[in-house]
Amino acid sequence: MAKVRVHNFTITLDGFSAGVNQRLEAPFGDGVDGLHDWMFAAQEDKAAGRPGIDADRVGRWEEGVGATIMGRNMFGPVRGPWQDDSWTGWWGDNPPYHHDVFVRTHHPRASLPMEGGTTFHFTDEPVEVVLERAMSAANGRDVVIAGGASTVQQYLRAGLIDELCIVVAPLLAGAGERLFDNVADALGNYQVTEMVSSPAVTHITVSRR
Amino acid sequence: MAKVRVHNFTITLDGFSAGVNQRLEAPFGDGVDGLHDWMFAAQEDKAAGRPGIDADRVGRWEEGVGATIMGRNMFGPVRGPWQDDSWTGWWGDNPPYHHDVFVRTHHPRASLPMEGGTTFHFTDEPVEVVLERAMSAANGRDVVIAGGASTVQQYLRAGLIDELCIVVAPLLAGAGERLFDNVADALGNYQVTEMVSSPAVTHITVSRR
Repeated sequence: MAKVRVHNFTITLDGFSAGVNQRLEAPFGDGVDGLHDWMFAAQEDKAAGRPGIDADRVGRWEEGVGATIMGRNMFGPVRGPWQDDSWTGWWGDNPPYHHDVFVRTHHPRASLPMEGGTTFHFTDEPVEVVLERAMSAANGRDVVIAGGASTVQQYLRAGLIDELCIVVAPLLAGAGERLFDNVADALGNYQVTEMVSSPAVTHITVSRR
Repeated sequence: MAKVRVHNFTITLDGFSAGVNQRLEAPFGDGVDGLHDWMFAAQEDKAAGRPGIDADRVGRWEEGVGATIMGRNMFGPVRGPWQDDSWTGWWGDNPPYHHDVFVRTHHPRASLPMEGGTTFHFTDEPVEVVLERAMSAANGRDVVIAGGASTVQQYLRAGLIDELCIVVAPLLAGAGERLFDNVADALGNYQVTEMVSSPAVTHITVSRR
């Protein structure tokens, strides 16, 4: 059964997935330097065949994911209407998705096919409609809600997420975008089903009751 | 060198140390049932001589603490002026402190000596003054800032805490009192220095830089 899931979504100890003042030079904003260091180290471990909790979790991202949904700020630093179509994402010519990626934005633009099988689609449709399109594109595989916090919150409030794999990194941001904000009513439907630490981070799985 | 520290302060995955609607029947409010279960289990383990991360951490609370500071809501459910002096804390006739406990309140009352060496003092003095009194009472031992969240935040903002041992429990509260709120400017002076998980919870040490 295909799942709708959040995977390796990394937050600071004080709960932030991004700091303030996100911009081209600092995609995740201020105060969160090193937030994803664990992931890069884990990817190296995995490539080198070194086993470990983090390498295992990084590897699971690739398993059975057929489509991704993200917010516009995760796609790029441009705010407001697009000046042109020159921004094609943070990930270079060959993004690491290799499937359809639905970017939620108030400013739709033409779909953007990239090398390696990734195609970015831009949509202002409701969360449910975007998820239906993503599930159709995934064709039986899982759909990942990639971020940022606001996008995950919208899908949590709509009750559409099956599982969240959260990663708590040993950092304190102080301010920014919190994952678990504006979701008080939604969280009653979820519970923590696993918690395990590597030397670098703590992995916590949150599942629908 | 004596430290000012926060010890075994337990928060949910979404960052709350208490839920909404704290009251006599639910001292920590709604949505946080089981928040301190790890602590009771660890105390049993410790008493039975079963080793473990949690038992070890629980044991450290007793080491070298000479005074405690807490907010009035941690002392009891009474809000506003005291109707009388009948409320003597949540902990029965022989509270587990066995030293001077300073209760910060807008409504001071006479000091309250209990069995076993605990004396509750009630004060509306500034955080710095209360800490000076507590350090004097501790006589070279550590001072623990016990909680709740607001009291810890006030001492963080004043830059007076040396170390926080935070415990993240696998729960989602959705709403309530967050530990890391209203401390954005203060957190830049602190860093995570240790993170380790037991099967039950994750222990995170936050230290002054």
